[in-house]
Amino acid sequence: MSQTDMNIFESLESEVRSYCRNFPTVFTKAKGHKLWDENGKEYIDFFSGAGALNYGHNDPKMKDKLIEYIQDDGITHSLDKATSAKGEFIKKFNDVILKPRNLEYKMMFPGPTGTNAVESALKLARKVTGRTDIISFTKGFHGMTIGSLSVTGNASKRKGAGVPLSHSVTMPYDNFMNDEQNTLDYLERYLEDSGSGVDIPAAMIVETVQGEGGINVARFEWLKQLDDICKRHDILLIVDDIQAGVGRTGTFFSFEKAGIKPDIVCLSKSLSGYGLPFAIALFRPELDVWNPGEHNGTFRGNNHAFVTASAALDYWKDDQLEKDVRNKSEITHEFLNNLVEKYPELKGTVRGRGLMVGVACEEPEYASKVISEAFERGLIMETSGMDDEVFKLFPAINIDEEALKAGLNIIEESVKSVVKEPVTN
Amino acid sequence: MSQTDMNIFESLESEVRSYCRNFPTVFTKAKGHKLWDENGKEYIDFFSGAGALNYGHNDPKMKDKLIEYIQDDGITHSLDKATSAKGEFIKKFNDVILKPRNLEYKMMFPGPTGTNAVESALKLARKVTGRTDIISFTKGFHGMTIGSLSVTGNASKRKGAGVPLSHSVTMPYDNFMNDEQNTLDYLERYLEDSGSGVDIPAAMIVETVQGEGGINVARFEWLKQLDDICKRHDILLIVDDIQAGVGRTGTFFSFEKAGIKPDIVCLSKSLSGYGLPFAIALFRPELDVWNPGEHNGTFRGNNHAFVTASAALDYWKDDQLEKDVRNKSEITHEFLNNLVEKYPELKGTVRGRGLMVGVACEEPEYASKVISEAFERGLIMETSGMDDEVFKLFPAINIDEEALKAGLNIIEESVKSVVKEPVTN
Amino acid sequence: MSQTDMNIFESLESEVRSYCRNFPTVFTKAKGHKLWDENGKEYIDFFSGAGALNYGHNDPKMKDKLIEYIQDDGITHSLDKATSAKGEFIKKFNDVILKPRNLEYKMMFPGPTGTNAVESALKLARKVTGRTDIISFTKGFHGMTIGSLSVTGNASKRKGAGVPLSHSVTMPYDNFMNDEQNTLDYLERYLEDSGSGVDIPAAMIVETVQGEGGINVARFEWLKQLDDICKRHDILLIVDDIQAGVGRTGTFFSFEKAGIKPDIVCLSKSLSGYGLPFAIALFRPELDVWNPGEHNGTFRGNNHAFVTASAALDYWKDDQLEKDVRNKSEITHEFLNNLVEKYPELKGTVRGRGLMVGVACEEPEYASKVISEAFERGLIMETSGMDDEVFKLFPAINIDEEALKAGLNIIEESVKSVVKEPVTN
Amino acid sequence: MSQTDMNIFESLESEVRSYCRNFPTVFTKAKGHKLWDENGKEYIDFFSGAGALNYGHNDPKMKDKLIEYIQDDGITHSLDKATSAKGEFIKKFNDVILKPRNLEYKMMFPGPTGTNAVESALKLARKVTGRTDIISFTKGFHGMTIGSLSVTGNASKRKGAGVPLSHSVTMPYDNFMNDEQNTLDYLERYLEDSGSGVDIPAAMIVETVQGEGGINVARFEWLKQLDDICKRHDILLIVDDIQAGVGRTGTFFSFEKAGIKPDIVCLSKSLSGYGLPFAIALFRPELDVWNPGEHNGTFRGNNHAFVTASAALDYWKDDQLEKDVRNKSEITHEFLNNLVEKYPELKGTVRGRGLMVGVACEEPEYASKVISEAFERGLIMETSGMDDEVFKLFPAINIDEEALKAGLNIIEESVKSVVKEPVTN
Repeated sequence: MSQTDMNIFESLESEVRSYCRNFPTVFTKAKGHKLWDENGKEYIDFFSGAGALNYGHNDPKMKDKLIEYIQDDGITHSLDKATSAKGEFIKKFNDVILKPRNLEYKMMFPGPTGTNAVESALKLARKVTGRTDIISFTKGFHGMTIGSLSVTGNASKRKGAGVPLSHSVTMPYDNFMNDEQNTLDYLERYLEDSGSGVDIPAAMIVETVQGEGGINVARFEWLKQLDDICKRHDILLIVDDIQAGVGRTGTFFSFEKAGIKPDIVCLSKSLSGYGLPFAIALFRPELDVWNPGEHNGTFRGNNHAFVTASAALDYWKDDQLEKDVRNKSEITHEFLNNLVEKYPELKGTVRGRGLMVGVACEEPEYASKVISEAFERGLIMETSGMDDEVFKLFPAINIDEEALKAGLNIIEESVKSVVKEPVTN
Repeated sequence: MSQTDMNIFESLESEVRSYCRNFPTVFTKAKGHKLWDENGKEYIDFFSGAGALNYGHNDPKMKDKLIEYIQDDGITHSLDKATSAKGEFIKKFNDVILKPRNLEYKMMFPGPTGTNAVESALKLARKVTGRTDIISFTKGFHGMTIGSLSVTGNASKRKGAGVPLSHSVTMPYDNFMNDEQNTLDYLERYLEDSGSGVDIPAAMIVETVQGEGGINVARFEWLKQLDDICKRHDILLIVDDIQAGVGRTGTFFSFEKAGIKPDIVCLSKSLSGYGLPFAIALFRPELDVWNPGEHNGTFRGNNHAFVTASAALDYWKDDQLEKDVRNKSEITHEFLNNLVEKYPELKGTVRGRGLMVGVACEEPEYASKVISEAFERGLIMETSGMDDEVFKLFPAINIDEEALKAGLNIIEESVKSVVKEPVTN
Repeated sequence: MSQTDMNIFESLESEVRSYCRNFPTVFTKAKGHKLWDENGKEYIDFFSGAGALNYGHNDPKMKDKLIEYIQDDGITHSLDKATSAKGEFIKKFNDVILKPRNLEYKMMFPGPTGTNAVESALKLARKVTGRTDIISFTKGFHGMTIGSLSVTGNASKRKGAGVPLSHSVTMPYDNFMNDEQNTLDYLERYLEDSGSGVDIPAAMIVETVQGEGGINVARFEWLKQLDDICKRHDILLIVDDIQAGVGRTGTFFSFEKAGIKPDIVCLSKSLSGYGLPFAIALFRPELDVWNPGEHNGTFRGNNHAFVTASAALDYWKDDQLEKDVRNKSEITHEFLNNLVEKYPELKGTVRGRGLMVGVACEEPEYASKVISEAFERGLIMETSGMDDEVFKLFPAINIDEEALKAGLNIIEESVKSVVKEPVTN
Repeated sequence: MSQTDMNIFESLESEVRSYCRNFPTVFTKAKGHKLWDENGKEYIDFFSGAGALNYGHNDPKMKDKLIEYIQDDGITHSLDKATSAKGEFIKKFNDVILKPRNLEYKMMFPGPTGTNAVESALKLARKVTGRTDIISFTKGFHGMTIGSLSVTGNASKRKGAGVPLSHSVTMPYDNFMNDEQNTLDYLERYLEDSGSGVDIPAAMIVETVQGEGGINVARFEWLKQLDDICKRHDILLIVDDIQAGVGRTGTFFSFEKAGIKPDIVCLSKSLSGYGLPFAIALFRPELDVWNPGEHNGTFRGNNHAFVTASAALDYWKDDQLEKDVRNKSEITHEFLNNLVEKYPELKGTVRGRGLMVGVACEEPEYASKVISEAFERGLIMETSGMDDEVFKLFPAINIDEEALKAGLNIIEESVKSVVKEPVTN
């Protein structure tokens, strides 16, 4: 393949593009935890498609299944018609994921992206309860279509709507006040006081760990208490597990260790295993009050994704992956804790759970510099947080230890390089 | 592959599923205009994934390119990073589609579904103009996320939102009043009178032929006049070409023969050529006021779709396909005109342009019966319109004449069978 | 009393003031159809407080009752406590107005201004039906608080809200299209088509003659048909009779001759008879689903207004006033028809019903000039319409013929003076 | 005057009426702190028209001025035309109230009720800043029209809107959390974090003491800090002084002792002095960006109210009234503190400032019983708070000590009687 003229993107693609500005090269090939650009330069991937590539790139087993399926002219696009590939996914997801976790959920294919899943979850919650408002949380991120955006905290994303966003109330996420007070006391006070101006909502929507918001972790007891509040006030609990789910925090669902069973769960990103567009909404069978076709969408039946997603479920047939993630998470956390201690100029705080981790820098500029230096050294990472103050480590959860350590080493070198320069404002 | 237990769908998939109720079988394989189910029964496809499979299923050239790309471990998922597959698509789309039509547009990858494209178009129009309202049209369909739903006419879909939809005004589509009066007189009266309660909107969004709305065709002069009104009042014109575009009406864009150049165009469905999730928004370069990342989404960079979409563009390198569609459109229209004449009990009206055609039945029940009979006879079609009163013919636009006629024959047999039965209410 | 320094208003009162700009003097005394300013200049009043002084200023009988009440230390302010003055008004209004017209209504005191009555009507309609939307009409005016403003057509008033106005749809008023087509065909088409994007509303709100909108008259058959549409679709009909009611069009309620009985009626302006703040909402007893205190307000119990309003009802004990208005309306219409014929330069069109009349000038500037000239000559009139293109005749409905003719003479002189000057743009 | 048939109210007045249910008699006469019903029974008034009769009923000096004005046929109704009565009020209000307090404000007459003043304040804040949202506070009450209701906390009042209320965010009022934490820390955290989901608002609207909300007092330092936050974030501060203003808390404006100068102040209720409908909005001259007529209303020029309001200003020519209120406030607070100590069964908490005081009962039922017993004994009081848990003492601020003590005695007797009965739930 000939070299791609970078001018094509400059002149023909919208200014809205963003990642390509941090990673200014043309990528062409990928395998496992590695990416290559057109110049043959190799990169370790600690970005993982913002959480859409938890199993790394182009996993060989999924790849074989996908090619076989395409070779055989399997159905590619099916809307919500029944296909054998879809049937297999539904059955296997139930057998491998839901049943062993004692979760009884129905599955909805709301369209292939996370925001489709969130929009359908909000619709369903409103229909079931007959209420209009949704409580979301500070720094939450749930998508860019108007329904999802109305429960997203980020001011500049919200402003992009061009219209006032309504029917939602933002409550403080765990530790939002940066002190000892339990933010759920506020929330419950609002619900209990009929003069609070906050009506009992249809649902609360929450991420157990906020990815875009800056790798903010809700404590398990906070989540447990949130679940209790929802139950007591007859409010549906929606866990948006789009980024934190599918193993990223160490278990398939991120909420498992909190001991809760949300009413509705949104999954997408790594669900297909292969980076293909795919999303589902799960909900308690009693909530399945949809009329046929009440929510729809052209790409609800992406059979290539059904095929790879089914293959990906093999990772969850035993607990080996969970153990591996735990081990690599420990390595990563230990490394990062040492790092922030060793480089106090960074003024860094380690955040995260499982392999959803990051370092928040008091001077936001440092985080951007670190990822820029890392890119030069062949490591891809992104920033997150409201001021891009966090550099975010999202290695493939099945990365081998050696590659993980190679990536961590690049981070240390990058940090070392950055803290030498004085911060300018 | 073993037989799929249909109970899986009943017990584990949400009640929201709909097409599978009309086509109660498990599909397993497809090629060109044909589908097969698990029992080996063959179907002619006059449904084409609701317009997402204009080139038929699993087109061999696209298939080869796709398999080759996957074999080579090409980048699958890239968000908005630059990849060689993306670069190729952008360049080829500009060279094959835009330039020859004297269209200067920038491309935005807003997420892989039509509703992502519509939501981004609305955001952009609001940002550019600083206004909040959008004018849409009766029976228009633009998607199921809250922004797109607010410009969609269908009452039951709207109700599904669970919240009042706002910042939009619905104006009468061409021929909405079923008489001689020009509905645009009404629209313009509203714009010109400062007491009309309708503010000058950011944009108007229109389909040139309404698919979901019941195959309603806007006359070219109506579209031309609409464009004039927009220009005179400094309103952006958005053409949602998601269903009518990519050749369905006989030209790549459905608006070409109206002689207009919309400010913003939304494409999806058949854009990838292979049924893979893919969408773009096109807009005049002057409108590209996005901040980086102001709209985003996990599956903006679906490289499998870039690969097949690039391959699909070969169909447009000359005008052969356009000629073929014209020819087959004539065959189809002639057939349908004869049909409604021959079976007056059907009280049918032929509607459509190109290969986006349908027959509206005065008794809505007839349309459902026709598609049900056709399914039995091995032909897949869907209904559309507010009361499902239209049976809709969407063959692949590259179907061969023989297959087209075979399908049309099944339709005639189905109609014959249906009109024998008395209609019951 | 010493002269008032006009600088007080300039320096201390907000720029929002408007009438004082057209009538730049300080008024000090008024009686019947006459006003005097501090310089002793006498004016004939064809403005009547924008319809709040239908019985003229300081009616002697009402004045006596009011002074007597104040002298006796009658309750002034009572919220919604029972008072003898309130009891008397309720009983007399029922006996003199409602019963003879076969109207069975309950009365609500929603606060003392028209917009309070409109807001309470909208609330009640939404509560009764469980629906959110209201259909209003082009050029309608219903008040300046957010609920009332959302059903008001005027663009600059709407913009003043500072937020998008929602939950309302504006339909075309009678003759909005300036041609033969019946605007209700549009409206009903929208209601009947489930793809129209317009949901069945809670209510329609309409003025039978639009005052602020430019003295636009709805034909009785149009109103009758509107009423039929509402009944057939189970929509509540609200007549906002705030400006057109209390005798202005020749009958107490403006809708009497249309033969309709609205579900809800809003009255204010001239209801107190004396220009005191007072408003009521009337509705069918079956609609009285309010909880106690669900709508409230400090000045619901303005007993001075109860006293004068009760006295004003004496005008309606027989049909003398109706006859007088009919007679004076004929004089006025005949005069104006002659006027526009005699002064073709005015390009005037006579509009109105009863003593709610005006002349629309093709060149809006003319209307302002006429009222300005009239003011100089001792006649007070205002303009209305979206471009202030209508000069509006609102004499007291009990004005004597001689005074009426004196006012009309001043109008003729003013027109004569204006048409001599060339129009400049 | 003959006896009023109570059936009139039952059969002809809407169920929305409320106070008449607590005070089931027909009032007919009032003077100072006393009311009489048709049976000649005398009542002490500790209700004062919910704060609209701070100077008592039918103050003799105001009465004389008003009768004289009516006798002389002074202008009654003037919209926003200049009148001598209006000029006098504007000048005197500036001279007696604003100048001595170093307040430079322009005056707007937005219509005669509190909610008109609030709606105009919100419009102006939105116009000045170009922002849409308003921050209001838990348990705040600002009126019943949709704009004012959207910033009101009470759930049942909000529900009465029948539509979702938007463009507002409710923040915790001082002491909302019932603990030591400063609720403004929470508010400011929301403003400072760009991921909080709360946009910088156009304005904050606050009552310094919440009347309807249950006599909740904001500490002066809290108000001062609120003012600082507004200044730092360029947010307008609106003080709704409709109930707490005009002397009720001991100074003319309730915010004087907090040392703040709000950007906008809303006044109504006792402003006319005589219980006549009257309201003004005051704002810094720089904020006066209104277009002429951008906000209007029929009863903006209630000249009877101008006359009595001017007369009422004489109370503020020296500091005698302030001293008297302070003295009577001390008496009242001392009495109530003793009361709750003496009757521990009441589980009462004394709340309030100046003569805006109340006792919150842990068992809400007690409050209702106390006012019921008091009514029997000839004392009129109302309850407030979300559960009507507060009995509220609002004597005229110019009441004499003897009458005050007589009222307090009735309260003690009523409490004594109530606490004997066991509370039933």
